[in-house]
Amino acid sequence: MTALRSLVSYHDVTWIASAITEEDRGLAGETIEETSRDGSPFRLHLIAHDKQAYDWFYNVVANPMLWFVQHSLWELPYTPKLDAAFHRAWEEGYVAVNEGFAAAVVRELERAPDAAVFFHDYHVYLAPRIVREHRPNAKSMHFVHIPWPQPDYWRIFPREMRWAIHDGLMANDVIGFHTDRWRRNFIYSVREFLGEDATPKTVTAPISVDAAEFDELAQSAAVLEAEREIVARQPEKLIVRVDRTDPSKNIVRGFRAFELYLDEHPEMHRRVGMLALLDPSRQDIPEYAEYLGAIQREARRVNDRFQQSGWRPIDLQIADDFPMSVAAYKQFDVLLVNAIFDGMNLVAKEAPLVNEQDGVVVLSENAGAHAELGEWALSINPFDVEGQARAIHQALEMGAGERRERLEAIRRYVREHDLGRWVELQLDALDRVATPASR
Amino acid sequence: MTALRSLVSYHDVTWIASAITEEDRGLAGETIEETSRDGSPFRLHLIAHDKQAYDWFYNVVANPMLWFVQHSLWELPYTPKLDAAFHRAWEEGYVAVNEGFAAAVVRELERAPDAAVFFHDYHVYLAPRIVREHRPNAKSMHFVHIPWPQPDYWRIFPREMRWAIHDGLMANDVIGFHTDRWRRNFIYSVREFLGEDATPKTVTAPISVDAAEFDELAQSAAVLEAEREIVARQPEKLIVRVDRTDPSKNIVRGFRAFELYLDEHPEMHRRVGMLALLDPSRQDIPEYAEYLGAIQREARRVNDRFQQSGWRPIDLQIADDFPMSVAAYKQFDVLLVNAIFDGMNLVAKEAPLVNEQDGVVVLSENAGAHAELGEWALSINPFDVEGQARAIHQALEMGAGERRERLEAIRRYVREHDLGRWVELQLDALDRVATPASR
Repeated sequence: MTALRSLVSYHDVTWIASAITEEDRGLAGETIEETSRDGSPFRLHLIAHDKQAYDWFYNVVANPMLWFVQHSLWELPYTPKLDAAFHRAWEEGYVAVNEGFAAAVVRELERAPDAAVFFHDYHVYLAPRIVREHRPNAKSMHFVHIPWPQPDYWRIFPREMRWAIHDGLMANDVIGFHTDRWRRNFIYSVREFLGEDATPKTVTAPISVDAAEFDELAQSAAVLEAEREIVARQPEKLIVRVDRTDPSKNIVRGFRAFELYLDEHPEMHRRVGMLALLDPSRQDIPEYAEYLGAIQREARRVNDRFQQSGWRPIDLQIADDFPMSVAAYKQFDVLLVNAIFDGMNLVAKEAPLVNEQDGVVVLSENAGAHAELGEWALSINPFDVEGQARAIHQALEMGAGERRERLEAIRRYVREHDLGRWVELQLDALDRVATPASR
Repeated sequence: MTALRSLVSYHDVTWIASAITEEDRGLAGETIEETSRDGSPFRLHLIAHDKQAYDWFYNVVANPMLWFVQHSLWELPYTPKLDAAFHRAWEEGYVAVNEGFAAAVVRELERAPDAAVFFHDYHVYLAPRIVREHRPNAKSMHFVHIPWPQPDYWRIFPREMRWAIHDGLMANDVIGFHTDRWRRNFIYSVREFLGEDATPKTVTAPISVDAAEFDELAQSAAVLEAEREIVARQPEKLIVRVDRTDPSKNIVRGFRAFELYLDEHPEMHRRVGMLALLDPSRQDIPEYAEYLGAIQREARRVNDRFQQSGWRPIDLQIADDFPMSVAAYKQFDVLLVNAIFDGMNLVAKEAPLVNEQDGVVVLSENAGAHAELGEWALSINPFDVEGQARAIHQALEMGAGERRERLEAIRRYVREHDLGRWVELQLDALDRVATPASR
């Protein structure tokens, strides 16, 4: 959301979104004048989708089906089982809600025919084709914020659905991804499902953070208070992870890796702790509820094995507490980002910006951020818990000079490749391809 | 095994294999003179691997790790967890057993320096590189009988292991696959892991069956007796599946699809049955034991819902009974092959050859056989149980003329593309590339 808000400050913007709360629904259909945090005005249109359709759209198709396919999370011998209920959720949920979004976009294009349309993410893959049918000359760009899997994994979707997803995206002038890896996978799968002649116009634009915002946040009263709390309780060395409780984040294996580390390094008992700040996520979806259970069970198992009076190895906090996260960013000695797959992972960019301990970033090779920051992080394979245990050890043993050099390199990179650059890369790409002559 | 035996009848062959039983181990190290079923002589060398090493090789690395990676079966949020035990199983099991195979091959090449070496399947990915180091001019071919996944799924293996697998295979003169799809995935992943300049020599050679053998089998006493048993018990319409109890075979979803069909077609209750002949497989491996439990539970659930006196919808037989399978091949009205991923699936070729009911083949688009037989089968998506239920309905409703045409086309194709052709395609490819000048 922070990232999207930044687009607002650049242009005259109308934001079209789903009405979620009852209050939202009351405002649906009106034009709401809003002001973004930096003072830029924008218009907000809220769409009141049918509630049943929205539940199918959001809780059956978008999450978990699309999310699980795009992060390779299914247990294919057993899940997903695409039954008649799923087919209905697709038709009467995902297709219907996309039609609703497309209709709102078409109405807005009546008011502002030259406006560029920016579609975001996996909820609206079908809308661009519908808009294109009504407004053949519309300029549109779609940004995909999550990984794009390789074609065989897309084949979990029945033929007509995977076709519609790819065809819908191809109706845009440009499709954007965080890394060349996801972009290249998209080109493969478009060719596989739409034919070898399909030539998508794509751009790699890695999302980033607003460094000034984090500089300011780091000194805010709320963060300073949270930081005092962390410092008062923390052992000599602090390993931090900050995530949503999402199965893609690999939290269970992270605890197991820490256990292996403690097994191999009894000399570090009482001296090291892992602080896991986890924002509970999508608890309406059974796979997410089960994953939260697995997280709690694994943390307890590791703590039961090792904890002593005055030392609990894993400090598990299930809460949405952003000031506490930023405080932990400042205090980490090791930041663990071991995602199974992750479109980008902004924690890996945010935390080094404000860290004050010359902390080391341990980073999954399957996180989008690895393409930019990998050379200064300790790379890990997310499935290799032994490798993660070794990386924790290596990070904790690293000399101060090397730690500082790596951290400062990351900081420099992120400051030079900030959120403004992400927006510019997209606008440049759209300008290049979306001239009337090229269509 | 039948398929490999056919190679023997073409050439002067030494077969190098693992000693499994105690009797085998007693013969290890000796040259055993054997005779194949068609009377061709061959030499057999048995290798007595260290038992602990073999257990790690077979029950930790080859199955399930390599098998599960190559069939995309892991539940990535939870499995695999590659801990120190796995790293040891790789080093002291898979690597060690491959070294044992390579040493035996090198010894045989001392006796017969011009012999061509044929490596088979995922158990021996590392051996070709070791042989090549000792015998730089050896001629070798590797045939991969199972699917080759796309590079991102190979990334489940830690970097050094995925590199070793690809590098080991690349030490061969030719690498063979059942379909262009697996072959193309191999080319992708070789380029991704070994560099864009890597140019593997590959061949697509779809394995097939010995039609004469099945013609004979179909009239054997054992099959005729099994067939009488099936005919005595079977309902008006018979759906057959024949598989190992392997998670890749998608047996649970097949039962669920049949349940959906029965839900939607009460008029077919008592008139249709599913005969599932399942060979218990790899029960030393927990994932396989659990899958057998899931199969039994799902069959019972469906039967509990629908069965009536004199009619049990699913006849589940867990046994290794090949005559019964061939009898079922003769009697099916619908053959269900809904594999999640399958290198080839020979049931889809064997069963039509001997079928006497103008039966319809319902075939997964992820089975290798689909590349050859897809146009005459009813294609299904293995994850789409609703689609499978519809395909069962379509197959049972199909007119006799169309059924016969489709079945005869499959039969004609399989007779024209038999096991001999599979061998010839491989030998031709090896001849083409493995001339001294090309090395």
